[in-house]
Amino acid sequence: MDSLRSAVGADAVRTDDASLDKYGRDETEDLHFPPSVVVLPSSQREVAAVMGLASHEQVPVTPRGGGTGLSGGALPVRGGILLSLERLDRIRRIDPVDMIAEVEAGVVTAHLQEEVELQGLFYPPDPASRESCFIGGNIAEDSAGPRSCKYGTTRHFVLGLEAVLADGTPITTGAAVRKNAAGYDLTQLLVGSEGTLAVVTAAQLRLLALPKARLTLGLPFQRCDEAANSVAEIFRRGFQPAACEFMEQAAILAAAMKVDVPPQVRECEAFLLLEFDGDRPDLLIEQAAALDAITDQLGATETLVAETEVEQRRMWQIRSAAGEAVKGLSDYKEADTVVPRASIGALLQGAHEIADRHRIRAICYGHAGDGNLHVNLLRGGLELSDWQRRRDSAEDDLFALVVRMGGTVTGEHGIGWTQRRHLEKVRSPEEIHLMNSIKRAFDPTGILNPGKVIPDSY
Amino acid sequence: MDSLRSAVGADAVRTDDASLDKYGRDETEDLHFPPSVVVLPSSQREVAAVMGLASHEQVPVTPRGGGTGLSGGALPVRGGILLSLERLDRIRRIDPVDMIAEVEAGVVTAHLQEEVELQGLFYPPDPASRESCFIGGNIAEDSAGPRSCKYGTTRHFVLGLEAVLADGTPITTGAAVRKNAAGYDLTQLLVGSEGTLAVVTAAQLRLLALPKARLTLGLPFQRCDEAANSVAEIFRRGFQPAACEFMEQAAILAAAMKVDVPPQVRECEAFLLLEFDGDRPDLLIEQAAALDAITDQLGATETLVAETEVEQRRMWQIRSAAGEAVKGLSDYKEADTVVPRASIGALLQGAHEIADRHRIRAICYGHAGDGNLHVNLLRGGLELSDWQRRRDSAEDDLFALVVRMGGTVTGEHGIGWTQRRHLEKVRSPEEIHLMNSIKRAFDPTGILNPGKVIPDSY
Repeated sequence: MDSLRSAVGADAVRTDDASLDKYGRDETEDLHFPPSVVVLPSSQREVAAVMGLASHEQVPVTPRGGGTGLSGGALPVRGGILLSLERLDRIRRIDPVDMIAEVEAGVVTAHLQEEVELQGLFYPPDPASRESCFIGGNIAEDSAGPRSCKYGTTRHFVLGLEAVLADGTPITTGAAVRKNAAGYDLTQLLVGSEGTLAVVTAAQLRLLALPKARLTLGLPFQRCDEAANSVAEIFRRGFQPAACEFMEQAAILAAAMKVDVPPQVRECEAFLLLEFDGDRPDLLIEQAAALDAITDQLGATETLVAETEVEQRRMWQIRSAAGEAVKGLSDYKEADTVVPRASIGALLQGAHEIADRHRIRAICYGHAGDGNLHVNLLRGGLELSDWQRRRDSAEDDLFALVVRMGGTVTGEHGIGWTQRRHLEKVRSPEEIHLMNSIKRAFDPTGILNPGKVIPDSY
Repeated sequence: MDSLRSAVGADAVRTDDASLDKYGRDETEDLHFPPSVVVLPSSQREVAAVMGLASHEQVPVTPRGGGTGLSGGALPVRGGILLSLERLDRIRRIDPVDMIAEVEAGVVTAHLQEEVELQGLFYPPDPASRESCFIGGNIAEDSAGPRSCKYGTTRHFVLGLEAVLADGTPITTGAAVRKNAAGYDLTQLLVGSEGTLAVVTAAQLRLLALPKARLTLGLPFQRCDEAANSVAEIFRRGFQPAACEFMEQAAILAAAMKVDVPPQVRECEAFLLLEFDGDRPDLLIEQAAALDAITDQLGATETLVAETEVEQRRMWQIRSAAGEAVKGLSDYKEADTVVPRASIGALLQGAHEIADRHRIRAICYGHAGDGNLHVNLLRGGLELSDWQRRRDSAEDDLFALVVRMGGTVTGEHGIGWTQRRHLEKVRSPEEIHLMNSIKRAFDPTGILNPGKVIPDSY
């Protein structure tokens, strides 16, 4: 402790109960793993010092961003040091000419977005937790959100990283340039590695020009399958929405307990929310009209158009409220399923059949444009052991279905701690051995975020 | 040889002089490294059999795509087996609903593009060699081209891979889905690894809707610096061209020896070629008008507009002809420099100052929208030893300048064989050690494309 205190300052080393409790949780279910100590470095140099000490003493270190993770990636499951990046919160540079930002890992995603927008620039990745999650956490998990269906996930915006290896060595990867073929792409390898290969301390991010206009559309459906099947059809016809979100009735009704939901949405079986963006409002209106002209064929009952910012916020809040509202209904387990876009309908039907078979409740919503459906299994009034058994069997059946459809077990939440047993459903032993060899190349003694991503049997 | 013949068929094993000569070259300068044997497998199974034998006998294997590489990545510099992927040439699937293609490594890039376009789909990456290069080679090098300034490089379109490890183990990475956070991203690690980690045999690629219209614009400038400085300004003003290419006068004049160049282009100091794409021709015309309205401020003498396909092809061929035309002038060395977009002007000026200082000729052109400038150093009438000395010193000075500007030593050609000594200019020893550890994790005995990417001293 003394050496930690002299490395980062006494104020940055916490062992009080409140801190250990707080930093022992993230937003993954009700899991709780208090660390031995919480350390709050303020610079890459201090992160390097902490890692040097931890490496010398062979103490586990779990890096943490905003604590909004959904697969337990930031839980210190083996105790030791919880390394919070919250004090590395500087936006070092926003370059409006090169359209690049350089930010520290602890910058809140929404804060970066607001700052670049002031300069007419745009950083698209928009995880649901964007008001509190950190860029560093987004990089660790390759976070996404509604807009990734047009713009791609966090990965697509990361040009270079500043990081610290397990032994305390600082490294930089990539550069603030738009093309780079110099050696293996360590930048892209670190993105999505969930803090197990290195501690990311800063990133160079690609920015776009801010679209000058947005238009949000809502399509209520009387049939769930028609809503789901419309998704691929909309893209196939050449529409390029910036977001294409799906909610089934139970998710809408849960949201309606928190926010205003207009009657025609509250009463529908399923709802698609689409957003178009661009530089000219008149063209967005034309897009809306073109979509409206085919809603009959798609099976939607009408086209709700939100033109003003207030109307758009009101429509978006239905979708935004759904996650927390559904999870507030009872204990839950969320499966972050992804299938090819055209299979969303079959996945939805299969998910409910599986839930019915296991006599458990499932509520679905998600980023349909990416084929990414969040299937929430709910405990309701079930006994604990009964819930655990049904939940695990249902989840296994669900992922088996996803794999048969050519899909994957997580689109944006990561493997972390809670999804490790599912990694083997989509990756062969040879591939997981390769991942493990990469892990050992970066962190030979395994002190960095131990217990995550790779199953213990490897 | 007998075991190779029984693995892939006698017809697929070549040791005749013509084959050894042909497969001992790619398009990198005048380098020539004949292999001991050329093997032409027809399936992933046969690739696995060849790798199994090579691994057992510890024979080097160099995978080869279309042979259009510019850094010697496919040259069998340590002899052994040259493994050509040319017979894995099937487009397995084009799915117009999911907007995904699954193709084998030996499919010619332009062929894939034509096939997906028949279905109203679009595969953007367009390396200059697209009529003969392979998708597998594009993946190995993370190839790009003019359109990457809007759409990104090959990497951005690869969702999953089928590959064979050095010991003959077949693996698959990723999946045909648009989001995937399941474990380390081996797909992105293999992209750009230049055939040193695994032999890619097939890929799942993301497709877009084909833009219905294109418009090509030419801006001639009387001052080179004004042309270069216009690049960042055009993007900063919110224009989002699909391509933004730069040529200086010497490159234009070289092209003019091969193709028709209109007088106002032939006589300018520098030329920017822009392409806009979208679904509505009228909007592209509006974009052209908006750009035309600022050309005076930018310093361009006029705006040449190519509306018809014939006019567009004619304008593009000026740019397309430049590469071969410049390289046809004499022996050459091409530096694939990248800097932040706004520094293109300073780089151009610096490149010529360096060339002047070393009394050597330099001709520049490239993908200015990505900050990617191809600087060709020309031998002209220099004695061999004199040329080698000046070339190497000039290249060192040039890359030192690029690094001072925050750039990198290759944007799209890769490190391969010829650029290895420059890798250390942009990556620290720690990072190259990490790359080497990754190499060893995939290929412990180093039989796969030995001598490439990582300098021998590691």
